[in-house]
Amino acid sequence: MEWVVKVGGSLFPDDAIKLCQTLVGTESIVICGGGALANKLRAYDTKVQFSDTANHKSAIMCMDILGMLVADKVDGAEAVHSLEDAKKTIGDGKLPILLPYLIMEYLDPLEHSWSVTSDSISLYISHLLKTKLLIATDVDGIYTSYPSQTGAKLIKNISAKKLLNFGETSVDEILPELLLQYKSECYVVNGRRPERVISIIEGKNSKYTLIGGN
Amino acid sequence: MEWVVKVGGSLFPDDAIKLCQTLVGTESIVICGGGALANKLRAYDTKVQFSDTANHKSAIMCMDILGMLVADKVDGAEAVHSLEDAKKTIGDGKLPILLPYLIMEYLDPLEHSWSVTSDSISLYISHLLKTKLLIATDVDGIYTSYPSQTGAKLIKNISAKKLLNFGETSVDEILPELLLQYKSECYVVNGRRPERVISIIEGKNSKYTLIGGN
Repeated sequence: MEWVVKVGGSLFPDDAIKLCQTLVGTESIVICGGGALANKLRAYDTKVQFSDTANHKSAIMCMDILGMLVADKVDGAEAVHSLEDAKKTIGDGKLPILLPYLIMEYLDPLEHSWSVTSDSISLYISHLLKTKLLIATDVDGIYTSYPSQTGAKLIKNISAKKLLNFGETSVDEILPELLLQYKSECYVVNGRRPERVISIIEGKNSKYTLIGGN
Repeated sequence: MEWVVKVGGSLFPDDAIKLCQTLVGTESIVICGGGALANKLRAYDTKVQFSDTANHKSAIMCMDILGMLVADKVDGAEAVHSLEDAKKTIGDGKLPILLPYLIMEYLDPLEHSWSVTSDSISLYISHLLKTKLLIATDVDGIYTSYPSQTGAKLIKNISAKKLLNFGETSVDEILPELLLQYKSECYVVNGRRPERVISIIEGKNSKYTLIGGN
């Protein structure tokens, strides 16, 4: 296995399903974001203020739900709960979609806060597996300012250190810290363009942002 | 333990939290509906059409999420995954909130369809435990027509057999069938009025609908 592909929750359902269909046979492991379900929980939290741990656990359960639903719609994909089953699934020529709740419950390696999302969780899993990480989101990568603003330019390469003080981007706040800690890197790519994701996996050029933690 | 109290997802978060706070010390076991999260999944299903099993499982995961969050906010409540832990929790003078995913995954007793919701699941659990069932929802009970329509009257007693052909009500479609099968009964009560729920638990009169399956 060479890649962990984090499929952003904002791509659910149609674009997430299409992207995963394209990924069957690539020896990747997919992790899905919690999307609109996790956003709903954030809104409840703003209103009611749950504990950090309850928020953390319930948001990861949303990742399991969307992952299970994507696996349900993709021929050749299989929802798995363990890294061992993920490897077996790839061995069978299928695409494993990892439901991370049980792994995160037992290992509990990351802080419990809304700054840790499926981006950081996917990086952690890719670190465990010693694979590369690709984050498929709903924009082309990281921009010099909000993508919708005039003059915003896509950044091709950025250091995680620089990203630390970058304000809000399309990846979560803890990701740059973890990239530095793991001396790792990750691609941020538009998941609505599956051909870009495939290009990167095949080592070809494409449109993306590469965040370097070395 | 004498009662399973199903706390409707429409009561989440504030009214669900208040009701459960009132239930601490009553020797009840709570099961939460999936509320807005499950409704979101229904909407996705209408758009994308997932398998019945994927819908069934993911909707039950929503029940686990809301149950965990309610337990997080209620002093004296504890989220549990098994009937044994539920009994222990009551023995400790606390209120168990059962997260039913694992039980339903292992026993899988009900059909997989949107006609089975947390109502039927709660009835199944109360049947396993040989307790009474109370469904706390966001209306006063079952009405002769939609509660919002002029002239709609609250029904005090109705047979499950009659309810079978009643069209859409505040309980799920399979509940009357299961009540007949188990020769059981259940109270439908307004969960925004915790004093009514307590009255019924204490054997006093109150405002409710009693559905009889005998």
